[in-house]
Amino acid sequence: MQNFVFHNPTKIIFGRNTIPSIGSETIALGQKALLVYGQGSMKESGLYEEVMNSLADACVIVVEHGGVRSNPLLDHVQQGIAKAKQEGVDVIVAVGGGSVIDTAKAIAAGSVVEHDVWKFFTGKKSVKSALPVLTVLTLAAAGSEMNSGMVITNQDTQEKFGFGHRLLYPKTSILDPEITYTVPPDYTAYGAVDAIAHVLEFYMTTQDTDTPVQARFMEGLILNAMESCERCLADPRDYGGRANLMWTATLALNGLTAAGLGRVGFPMHMIEHSLSALYDVPHGAGLSVVMPGWLQWYLYQDTARIARLGQGILPSAQFQQLAGQGERAVAEQTIAFLRTWFSKVHSPVTLTEMNIPAEDIPRIAENALGLAKVWRLNQYSQAIIEEILRGCI
Amino acid sequence: MQNFVFHNPTKIIFGRNTIPSIGSETIALGQKALLVYGQGSMKESGLYEEVMNSLADACVIVVEHGGVRSNPLLDHVQQGIAKAKQEGVDVIVAVGGGSVIDTAKAIAAGSVVEHDVWKFFTGKKSVKSALPVLTVLTLAAAGSEMNSGMVITNQDTQEKFGFGHRLLYPKTSILDPEITYTVPPDYTAYGAVDAIAHVLEFYMTTQDTDTPVQARFMEGLILNAMESCERCLADPRDYGGRANLMWTATLALNGLTAAGLGRVGFPMHMIEHSLSALYDVPHGAGLSVVMPGWLQWYLYQDTARIARLGQGILPSAQFQQLAGQGERAVAEQTIAFLRTWFSKVHSPVTLTEMNIPAEDIPRIAENALGLAKVWRLNQYSQAIIEEILRGCI
Repeated sequence: MQNFVFHNPTKIIFGRNTIPSIGSETIALGQKALLVYGQGSMKESGLYEEVMNSLADACVIVVEHGGVRSNPLLDHVQQGIAKAKQEGVDVIVAVGGGSVIDTAKAIAAGSVVEHDVWKFFTGKKSVKSALPVLTVLTLAAAGSEMNSGMVITNQDTQEKFGFGHRLLYPKTSILDPEITYTVPPDYTAYGAVDAIAHVLEFYMTTQDTDTPVQARFMEGLILNAMESCERCLADPRDYGGRANLMWTATLALNGLTAAGLGRVGFPMHMIEHSLSALYDVPHGAGLSVVMPGWLQWYLYQDTARIARLGQGILPSAQFQQLAGQGERAVAEQTIAFLRTWFSKVHSPVTLTEMNIPAEDIPRIAENALGLAKVWRLNQYSQAIIEEILRGCI
Repeated sequence: MQNFVFHNPTKIIFGRNTIPSIGSETIALGQKALLVYGQGSMKESGLYEEVMNSLADACVIVVEHGGVRSNPLLDHVQQGIAKAKQEGVDVIVAVGGGSVIDTAKAIAAGSVVEHDVWKFFTGKKSVKSALPVLTVLTLAAAGSEMNSGMVITNQDTQEKFGFGHRLLYPKTSILDPEITYTVPPDYTAYGAVDAIAHVLEFYMTTQDTDTPVQARFMEGLILNAMESCERCLADPRDYGGRANLMWTATLALNGLTAAGLGRVGFPMHMIEHSLSALYDVPHGAGLSVVMPGWLQWYLYQDTARIARLGQGILPSAQFQQLAGQGERAVAEQTIAFLRTWFSKVHSPVTLTEMNIPAEDIPRIAENALGLAKVWRLNQYSQAIIEEILRGCI
């Protein structure tokens, strides 16, 4: 195991009827809140009113900043920062999924500096302070509600970049699984895919494999994401299914899976970010295309690693049958197991399904290469990324 | 899943050569520290000098309070409180295992009130503030380094009581697996047994079994405790073994396994605390005696629960063979699997092995009943506790 510091100070309030606590949690940290949210669905569902009432009851003054879209954009972040500065807000309340929470974090960091917020993402400036962020989560997927990271797309440069800092952990996150009853099947599945991708990135890229504590935890999270997603698709109002999917997605990227692994990479996200940036596909959909292709390529780099995953996630009877056939067979069936499951929940597994033509591969790879440099994934050349993408056709 | 609040603010600094950071971590919280530690072994190993040098380098003034013993005593806590008040210390540094850390927490809570500290344990007073606590962990076992609980024995009343409060999470805990190279085989095993017991209490007593996220996490921790313990016994200087055992024991009781389970009980600890209080046996040794007996009794209450554990922890091939024989067979083999493992690592599995005669059972049960009342384990009558203990002969 590698040395690590684990310090996740986010307070999670989880369960039914927890949203009315947003007011008292917020007023403990500030008096004037920027309320960040997405499109109109929150208003239709009654969630907007519930949050506004709670904030009003606690005497929090609210400045609104709605309109965050999926794959959130830098210019909308910049508008939020201008608003926060102008209005003198001292706390940010995010009501939404990962895109909304990431936007809130970027505003929290950008509101206390004079320079452009994008400089944090390109590594030209570092965070020294930030406004406190609270969240009300509406989608089980990104894990942003309990970590310090964020991903924003710069529409001018077509770059979708991620960045994190310990001052950006939300102070409090409220997770009410009932809010997610109305998440449609496709986005329910994309959320589960996103959680699985977060786990797989760490599982596959750690250089230190003497980490069984983390490995078993991650294998469990993958199985939980699958099982709970299937329950939600079968019955969107299955509380247990929604609750287990929500907590799984949070734990999949709250730092605990990574603690002790040493340096890890996000190569699948790197390639997917280019798909999102260039074609605006849903993040989870892009990931279910990239994952099997990347794993198929990675099979030749580290068969044992994929086979170890298979031992942890393949059904016991299937694993017993395969065990005599060697590592390679187990690894191949593990990739097939994941690909089949993505298809089962109707998440795409090929570029073709997303109407992205094979001719675009060099252009996608070129875009991904930009992020490879920022994330220091130096082993990924244009040729290698193209090779991986050809496995995704 | 049940509603929960999860908020664990402890900062973990894990790995090799991390002890020298104790000075800078401490001075950030206070200028005058009460240094709580156990018997002499820390001085022989050089750890005492390393900690003192780091504190001196950071200009922390140190008041010493050594002499904590295993199953820590109330009068020693009271002496520490008197010293802390007299010297005006503003931070507590614990260097040791669970007993030392628990003593430090009790002093931290007791130093800021006028009443006797035992009133917290009997529920007559509640904690409203506490001095900050930092820890340097020397034993993988109790999990106290990342939770808000503590267990102290009142030698006058022969009561070993536990108590917790959110203000008692250590601010920082330093976990260097290399410190544990010198832990002897018996205490290495008792530590692993303690971690397994913490997991089993939650796993078996939750009323909400629609909690697969927690269940899989716990099953993994049990397997990790077993595997890493065996590695440490085979080679006491196996860094990976020590590191995985240490992190497992911490995660086994840091609140994450319990979050979402709703109300849980600690019936096995309840009975073991009586063994420790009456016979001063090592906590882990007492637990390996109580666990199989309690599980054997519990088999008739909830066979399915034990069988579910078996599915998670029995070797895949063994489980496949058993699966056709029904739940009862799986559950029985699961208990046998645990008992056999305790014996394998030379932790006792009968009262006889600890020289506790069967005639003492009524007296032990009577003692345990006192804690059953405090912990509200109302289903445990004198007769039931005696029945469980008869299964431990």
